Amino acid sequence: METTDLSHHISSRFNEDLESVRADLLRMGGLVEAQLQKSLAALADEDSALAADVVRDDAQVNRLEVEIDEACLRILATRAPAAGDLRLVVAITKAITDLERIGDEARKIAHIALRLASLERPADRYREIRHLGRLVEVMVHEALDAFARMDSDAALRVPQHDLQVDEEYESIQRQCVTFMMEDPRQIRRMLDVTWAARALERVGDHAKNIAEYVIYMVHGQDVRHTRLEEVQSRLRARSEGGAP
Amino acid sequence: METTDLSHHISSRFNEDLESVRADLLRMGGLVEAQLQKSLAALADEDSALAADVVRDDAQVNRLEVEIDEACLRILATRAPAAGDLRLVVAITKAITDLERIGDEARKIAHIALRLASLERPADRYREIRHLGRLVEVMVHEALDAFARMDSDAALRVPQHDLQVDEEYESIQRQCVTFMMEDPRQIRRMLDVTWAARALERVGDHAKNIAEYVIYMVHGQDVRHTRLEEVQSRLRARSEGGAP
Repeated sequence: METTDLSHHISSRFNEDLESVRADLLRMGGLVEAQLQKSLAALADEDSALAADVVRDDAQVNRLEVEIDEACLRILATRAPAAGDLRLVVAITKAITDLERIGDEARKIAHIALRLASLERPADRYREIRHLGRLVEVMVHEALDAFARMDSDAALRVPQHDLQVDEEYESIQRQCVTFMMEDPRQIRRMLDVTWAARALERVGDHAKNIAEYVIYMVHGQDVRHTRLEEVQSRLRARSEGGAP
Repeated sequence: METTDLSHHISSRFNEDLESVRADLLRMGGLVEAQLQKSLAALADEDSALAADVVRDDAQVNRLEVEIDEACLRILATRAPAAGDLRLVVAITKAITDLERIGDEARKIAHIALRLASLERPADRYREIRHLGRLVEVMVHEALDAFARMDSDAALRVPQHDLQVDEEYESIQRQCVTFMMEDPRQIRRMLDVTWAARALERVGDHAKNIAEYVIYMVHGQDVRHTRLEEVQSRLRARSEGGAP
């Protein structure tokens, strides 16, 4: 397992600064995870109060994004970090954008939950959506965990859920079209279900982005727009070749 | 009009580096604008070849994103830029992410165009979508133009199109639901039209993000998650107070 170690700094103030933004990112991550989980529960249980919670939490997530960004910029301006430290700071400024967008998607799901709460609840309590939701919750959790431990092996596992997410997403879309055709009175509800599925699919994309920043942070390799197999073989070649 | 001037550097190499990433960003912007424009033309004219073009261009946009990001990181690592220069570099790393996402949305519209090309073309050639498309094209163009001239006044005008985009988007959604209810055979096509509208709405969001980075770059104020009126009055207060 390859990890990066923060404890090598001569300046302990610098260490503290880096640790502090990293801790803030994880705090922001925890908040966003809670938003996602609450938005799905609000949908399944038609719990309008919970949905309103998610919408309210959004302001805090946005505030954290701006604060962390400012802290990163301060570090860049005053510490001029190099190598791994620079990559850590850059990875954080990028990851918080994805976290904020996950929060946005959770808020959209909460809005959908508020709309659907006024309709009769289906017997299955949106089973497929809950299933897709659990899949992407795992992706977000694993990505944040990989970030916390700076563990690129763990980060590489995040995109492996992708195929399952795609299958689940496609199946929900097909089902919604079928329901709409069978009963046009269901069109509005089914549109909301397709929007919720789309929002969850995007959450999975953002989790993958965060995982990519972890790999970049640890290895200095930009793996965006690269197939997973390619990334794995590249990293394997580097570690076998003894490259840094 | 407040602008930032790049010509003050003692090191002409540093100047060149900054100018070069800025030029690359604008080149990437031009490419993405072309993608968007082509994807809309592909939809209106059921031009599958044009749609395939957009999908193909995506690889180039992705490559540019990675290249520009690497160049920015090199500047941060070797030049340790301060103040306005640092903000310029950070703004570029953020803006390219939004540009890449605009390219993604254009690619989605191109895919929709490919699917719809097999259906009978409606007499109005997706008039509403084309209209919404023109609105967000203007937003993207204005945002890139503000970036090129580092003109925060021009950047402030970008979000002013928002209300119109929202109205247009809502009207398309309502219309699609009506069509679906009237004729369930239209459901698949109308779903594609709603996806295209959603993609365009997101393009407008990304254009707004880019405009916000311009304001941040010029004034050092993070204006994300802030209402436009609030931003305007803050900037006015600063310029009247003679703050930097």
